[in-house]
Amino acid sequence: MPNPTAAILIIGDEILTGRTREGNAWFLAQELVKVGIDLRQIRVIGDDHATIVAAVRELSVAHDQLFTSGGIGPTHDDITADAVADAFGRTIGVREDARAILAAHYAARGLEFTEARLRMARIPEGATLIDNPVSSAPGFSVENCHVMAGVPNIFQAMVAGLLPRLTGGAPLRSRSLQLMVPEATIADALRALAEAHPEASFGSYPFVTEGRYGTNLVVRSTDPAALEGAFAELQATFPEGQ
Amino acid sequence: MPNPTAAILIIGDEILTGRTREGNAWFLAQELVKVGIDLRQIRVIGDDHATIVAAVRELSVAHDQLFTSGGIGPTHDDITADAVADAFGRTIGVREDARAILAAHYAARGLEFTEARLRMARIPEGATLIDNPVSSAPGFSVENCHVMAGVPNIFQAMVAGLLPRLTGGAPLRSRSLQLMVPEATIADALRALAEAHPEASFGSYPFVTEGRYGTNLVVRSTDPAALEGAFAELQATFPEGQ
Repeated sequence: MPNPTAAILIIGDEILTGRTREGNAWFLAQELVKVGIDLRQIRVIGDDHATIVAAVRELSVAHDQLFTSGGIGPTHDDITADAVADAFGRTIGVREDARAILAAHYAARGLEFTEARLRMARIPEGATLIDNPVSSAPGFSVENCHVMAGVPNIFQAMVAGLLPRLTGGAPLRSRSLQLMVPEATIADALRALAEAHPEASFGSYPFVTEGRYGTNLVVRSTDPAALEGAFAELQATFPEGQ
Repeated sequence: MPNPTAAILIIGDEILTGRTREGNAWFLAQELVKVGIDLRQIRVIGDDHATIVAAVRELSVAHDQLFTSGGIGPTHDDITADAVADAFGRTIGVREDARAILAAHYAARGLEFTEARLRMARIPEGATLIDNPVSSAPGFSVENCHVMAGVPNIFQAMVAGLLPRLTGGAPLRSRSLQLMVPEATIADALRALAEAHPEASFGSYPFVTEGRYGTNLVVRSTDPAALEGAFAELQATFPEGQ
């Protein structure tokens, strides 16, 4: 059976204006590989209601799982929860269990439970909460769409709680070999290997270090035996590799 | 007149599997802000012909400019040039001027001009070459789609040569203020400012440093006077900001 597929939707003007370097998609990409969910697309869009609604609809239909990051805080530019509710045709309002989680968190810290903070208890109807062990304001899942915070340490904590709930597949495994030659010099041999091993994928990634050209060759497969077979041939083809 | 719009399409399995942290989109996002081109979307997809063709068609129609990164090297997994040709219904073949650039580069370095390297002279018909001062193999523009290398230093050099050719608009300017308070405590005042200044956009970005919560507030506008006016009010509202 093929692995389930996924997309990641990053929401935030601060990424599109170059103010912030996105890192949540990179983190989640590595986690999805481990649990056997095939990431097919990462998309970054701005804080615009219609754009978020359209992207959530398109990506949730086209993939088994959709993960979003950003836009669920207390300020006026946090519009993801309302947009996701619209995308799935659901109502949204303050939910009692989410409100209680926030109330307990602020009470324990002597912080005021303001109107702005109450905004973070607005959850689409029928959603499942995603635990936030960092700052308590929960994420949520609606159908196959998992809505999480943009702040990196909160995003990572939410992913840790969410992923065990999802059905994965065979983890994608990889082996790599580094050669200190330009990639063009090994292109023909690598193509022949790739054609001989359709059960694995072969990637070639050039780099320059201290003025010398090098190439990282990466073999990937969800089948451990196929991976080892293909990697053994790669090593035999390029015995100088490390 | 509104600024021209743009999308960035990053092509490469190595991003989706988490092997490589994407940085080219972050770099280009910062450059586009300076020249007044509004980045509306960043999309990352894998090395799959049909997926690249569909994404190039969709994003080039929906934006004034489309920038791609990755997949134009000499190996079997470099399939971007052929996919872009297909997306625009153009033929593709080895182009004499591109071949001559590569031939001169390899001759000067005593390197063999292999079949694999000749692959990098395959350019869709009617394209304009994009100069590669690092390793000579050119990028190219077909209509509004600008195809560049994925290796970061080559991508950056190509962007430097390409951007002066494009028509930009008013640069998006920004001013920011850092407050050492959680963002929820300033949410109401910030919302009022945002509603009073529709000519500027206000973003709020929480962070934690040494166990303390803080918030970066960013005002953005393409109109310098509007920006300064909105920022002056932001400073007056939060005099403790730095």
